[in-house]
Amino acid sequence: MPDVKLEIQMLHDRVMVRISPEDGERRSSGGIVIPATAQMAKRLAWGDVHGIGTNVRHVKVGDRVLFNPDDQFEVEVQGQTYLIMRERDVHATATERTDHGTGLYL
Amino acid sequence: MPDVKLEIQMLHDRVMVRISPEDGERRSSGGIVIPATAQMAKRLAWGDVHGIGTNVRHVKVGDRVLFNPDDQFEVEVQGQTYLIMRERDVHATATERTDHGTGLYL
Amino acid sequence: MPDVKLEIQMLHDRVMVRISPEDGERRSSGGIVIPATAQMAKRLAWGDVHGIGTNVRHVKVGDRVLFNPDDQFEVEVQGQTYLIMRERDVHATATERTDHGTGLYL
Amino acid sequence: MPDVKLEIQMLHDRVMVRISPEDGERRSSGGIVIPATAQMAKRLAWGDVHGIGTNVRHVKVGDRVLFNPDDQFEVEVQGQTYLIMRERDVHATATERTDHGTGLYL
Amino acid sequence: MPDVKLEIQMLHDRVMVRISPEDGERRSSGGIVIPATAQMAKRLAWGDVHGIGTNVRHVKVGDRVLFNPDDQFEVEVQGQTYLIMRERDVHATATERTDHGTGLYL
Amino acid sequence: MPDVKLEIQMLHDRVMVRISPEDGERRSSGGIVIPATAQMAKRLAWGDVHGIGTNVRHVKVGDRVLFNPDDQFEVEVQGQTYLIMRERDVHATATERTDHGTGLYL
Amino acid sequence: MPDVKLEIQMLHDRVMVRISPEDGERRSSGGIVIPATAQMAKRLAWGDVHGIGTNVRHVKVGDRVLFNPDDQFEVEVQGQTYLIMRERDVHATATERTDHGTGLYL
Repeated sequence: MPDVKLEIQMLHDRVMVRISPEDGERRSSGGIVIPATAQMAKRLAWGDVHGIGTNVRHVKVGDRVLFNPDDQFEVEVQGQTYLIMRERDVHATATERTDHGTGLYL
Repeated sequence: MPDVKLEIQMLHDRVMVRISPEDGERRSSGGIVIPATAQMAKRLAWGDVHGIGTNVRHVKVGDRVLFNPDDQFEVEVQGQTYLIMRERDVHATATERTDHGTGLYL
Repeated sequence: MPDVKLEIQMLHDRVMVRISPEDGERRSSGGIVIPATAQMAKRLAWGDVHGIGTNVRHVKVGDRVLFNPDDQFEVEVQGQTYLIMRERDVHATATERTDHGTGLYL
Repeated sequence: MPDVKLEIQMLHDRVMVRISPEDGERRSSGGIVIPATAQMAKRLAWGDVHGIGTNVRHVKVGDRVLFNPDDQFEVEVQGQTYLIMRERDVHATATERTDHGTGLYL
Repeated sequence: MPDVKLEIQMLHDRVMVRISPEDGERRSSGGIVIPATAQMAKRLAWGDVHGIGTNVRHVKVGDRVLFNPDDQFEVEVQGQTYLIMRERDVHATATERTDHGTGLYL
Repeated sequence: MPDVKLEIQMLHDRVMVRISPEDGERRSSGGIVIPATAQMAKRLAWGDVHGIGTNVRHVKVGDRVLFNPDDQFEVEVQGQTYLIMRERDVHATATERTDHGTGLYL
Repeated sequence: MPDVKLEIQMLHDRVMVRISPEDGERRSSGGIVIPATAQMAKRLAWGDVHGIGTNVRHVKVGDRVLFNPDDQFEVEVQGQTYLIMRERDVHATATERTDHGTGLYL
């Protein structure tokens, strides 16, 4: 029987994000997250959306989004790490067309 | 009296999952879970659904699902370990047919 | 005056369960519960329902049910220990007739 | 002016319970409760209802009730100690007439 | 300009209570409350109501009420200490006329 | 361009209070609040309302109000310190005209 | 392909604020926030709004707002640090035109 190809699909309000390379480095490699004793200001990171659940309203695949990279769920797919978060934990988007943009650009 | 056969059935929103072999190993054998002092990034795992409660809407028996393997309830049935979780704690599925897939495949 | 016989009856959503002998042993005798420092995987246990409150919908007296044996309320009646829990904390049943069974049997 | 007699009356969902003598002993005298370091299984106790608030629905004065004797509010009236709890914290009753009894008797 | 007299009035669900002398002593003088390390049973106290907010339904000025004297807000008015609590934290009243009294008297 | 004058206005349910001088002293100067190890009874303080948000119903500018001075937000305006709290955290008022006053006066 | 310009836009109830220079200094540079052991009074800070999400009602771009500078999310855009908070965490505004102003000016 040919190996069945299973496509990944997000559920509920989940958003699948690939963190941008420059922000990615801040997250220590090998999955060990720096213990939060030295309480760093909570620095947000940017990443690209690769999947959304059916309840997601304000974010679409391809958007660049702003989120807290710490303490997020991770999954590895074909050697690439993706973060899985809830839409409510996404703070902002950065897109070509906006309707209430900040006038600030990435 | 012949030994009565009792079939297991999930209640409410519960999902019964058998963790995939490769992810299973990460969970230490003998039920002792690595204490979360060395705070590993929260690595998700894949597994197959073997049972769902009547309130489960978005996941069906046979689906491969993505979940957090740590701190889950366990039950052993005929020598095999199954995890019992709530539907809301399942992040994604991986199935042959999707309607809003990520284009990423297991 | 003859000693009045008082029959025990559960209230609200409570379920009265007698833990099955094999799972019972895991709960140390004399009521001392193993401190949760060595964080055992949360191993569920089976038991039989002996009483249900008026708000219980999905479980009936005589059902075998799956629950977390740790940190439950206990009461002793005529030398036998029963656990008292809420219906929402029961994960699954094992019964002769099911309508969405897992195909797995005790 | 003759000393006015003030009758005690429960408010809201409160239930006033006098713990049964045998269970009462387990609660150390002098009000010092055994610190919960040696985590005893949460052993429930029986007691008799002496007062109920206007929002109490399923318990009446004179019922014997099953409750957790630890960490409850106490009041002393004419040398006798009573526990004050909420109806939702009462697990079961033991009465002469029941409509969904367990067939188990005190 | 003559000194304007400002009358104190409770807001919302607040109840202003003057603790009864005998229960008052148990609360150490000078406002230092005994640290709750020696976990005393939670002994309730009686006091008289001197003020109620507009949302208070079941308690009136002049009632004697039963409450937990620990960890309450305090205010001093003309040398007298009053406790300020919420109606929901009052367990019982003791009054001359009751409609579902306990038959127990202060 | 002349320096634009920006008037401060409270939002939502916020109340801006200037603590009364005598209660103010209890709050240590320089903003260091006495650590709550020596668990002082929670002594309330009086202050005057200088601003209210649009959702504030029961308190108006000029009222004297009773509140917990500990652990409140602070802002300094023209050398004067004001506390910012929510209406629900104000326990009582002291005003010339009341409709359900306590008969107690400041 | 010319480098696509992505404009930043806030989501949900988020407000993007640039802290005012004088308040900014209090937040230690390099993102290390002073651990809250020496429990400073919770001193609020002023800043200017640069972006708002679609659910924001009472604050607009250009407003000066009052907020708690501690424990806020941060993002750096073109070398400038912005704080991202929820509208409900903004206590007050300071604007030229007000309808229920405090008569206090920045």
